[in-house]
Amino acid sequence: MYKESDSTEVTARLKPYKKESDYSYALGAFPTFELLKAQPEIALRVLCRSDFTERHKLEKLCAACQVPFELNDKLVARISNKGNCYVIGVFKKRERPLRKEDPHLILVNPGNMGNLGTIIRTAVGFGLNDLGIILPSADIFDPKTIRASMGAIFRLSFQAYSSFGEYRRQHPRHQLFPFITEGSTRLAPGLASGPYPYALVFGNEATGLDKSYGQQGISVSIPQTTGIDSLNLTVAVGIGLYVFTKW
Amino acid sequence: MYKESDSTEVTARLKPYKKESDYSYALGAFPTFELLKAQPEIALRVLCRSDFTERHKLEKLCAACQVPFELNDKLVARISNKGNCYVIGVFKKRERPLRKEDPHLILVNPGNMGNLGTIIRTAVGFGLNDLGIILPSADIFDPKTIRASMGAIFRLSFQAYSSFGEYRRQHPRHQLFPFITEGSTRLAPGLASGPYPYALVFGNEATGLDKSYGQQGISVSIPQTTGIDSLNLTVAVGIGLYVFTKW
Repeated sequence: MYKESDSTEVTARLKPYKKESDYSYALGAFPTFELLKAQPEIALRVLCRSDFTERHKLEKLCAACQVPFELNDKLVARISNKGNCYVIGVFKKRERPLRKEDPHLILVNPGNMGNLGTIIRTAVGFGLNDLGIILPSADIFDPKTIRASMGAIFRLSFQAYSSFGEYRRQHPRHQLFPFITEGSTRLAPGLASGPYPYALVFGNEATGLDKSYGQQGISVSIPQTTGIDSLNLTVAVGIGLYVFTKW
Repeated sequence: MYKESDSTEVTARLKPYKKESDYSYALGAFPTFELLKAQPEIALRVLCRSDFTERHKLEKLCAACQVPFELNDKLVARISNKGNCYVIGVFKKRERPLRKEDPHLILVNPGNMGNLGTIIRTAVGFGLNDLGIILPSADIFDPKTIRASMGAIFRLSFQAYSSFGEYRRQHPRHQLFPFITEGSTRLAPGLASGPYPYALVFGNEATGLDKSYGQQGISVSIPQTTGIDSLNLTVAVGIGLYVFTKW
């Protein structure tokens, strides 16, 4: 009995997400399963509605991962603020340093949480699992980002940098490929041919990369008609990732 | 004076967009310029805020296209319902039949206006200008779709079909490439090798294409890791369009 009431006391303190919190939420069953499968060590607690159909499967996985499992309809409703959310995974926010020997994806000032989550999902789908973000940026730990990533974020090594120079100091050897509308080289298979792993660099939704990035590494353009101003960022990143990881 | 008050009377009747309307709105300067450049014949009227910086350029283009131009701050605010909209292009909703000899993009039941607009922008960016939509579908003429397309929709031939069979009856010869997670052929350059133009077929955001499409033409998959459930629809379409139009 003591343990029961203690647990209730702790979760009663959980509040709707704020950027300053040191924990965040995976809203929904799919991202919560991803959390438990990929990084159980950062999972703090799982909240579940009593009418969730896969409740026993989830409870079993929590037990195997030693993550507290709690049925609490009211708390799920309060935190998710949505009627169609059955499961919430509470997790500790944590960065993991980028691997020195693996390819990187670098996003400079991404501004939209939905886009950021979708890009993460694409990167993990193509096996590129190291993401650097140059600040300021949309909040990668916001539940909206987590949800747009469909939980793929838990499979990622991720680090934020105060500037591109700061990233470069930590990873000076990666072969840089900034994507710029007026890039000097057309996107094509086989561009990454040097001895070091590549880093694909993309600017933000509204402004792209400024021209100074054209001087860094091999600037790449995705050929397009004059019928549009530019490709959407998530689409451009998806195509870049596809060509670099598959060809 | 008579003409002035007459014009005010007509535009005073303009209402926020409804699906049943026979006209719609391009909200913003960029999509309105696209409307006037690509399909001036469907432009009914342009509304402009008096503090729009490129007002004279826009007025000149309207005159050249013989499209009525009107300064009307209140009407712009009322229709757009947003503070940052300076220009509205009012246009007549109209389908244009798909060309028989050109490649097609076919979307089966797309459900999200933002995605639909982004896909249109991508298709036009890669020079594929014939879009078929299988109903039911998100409203292609909704101002949200127009805005997400950044006005690229005005460069498109577009037609809605009650079923895939209906599309097929009108275009029986296109070589079909349905994109399915378990597709039999990996996406790669050179797939479209037959004597007839290709048609890329994609399902909706939540469910994809049902398995019956696997029997039609050459079913294509985009290889991905088990770390994600599936790629986002706009990203998958972007990659498919890129490979088919560029290689």
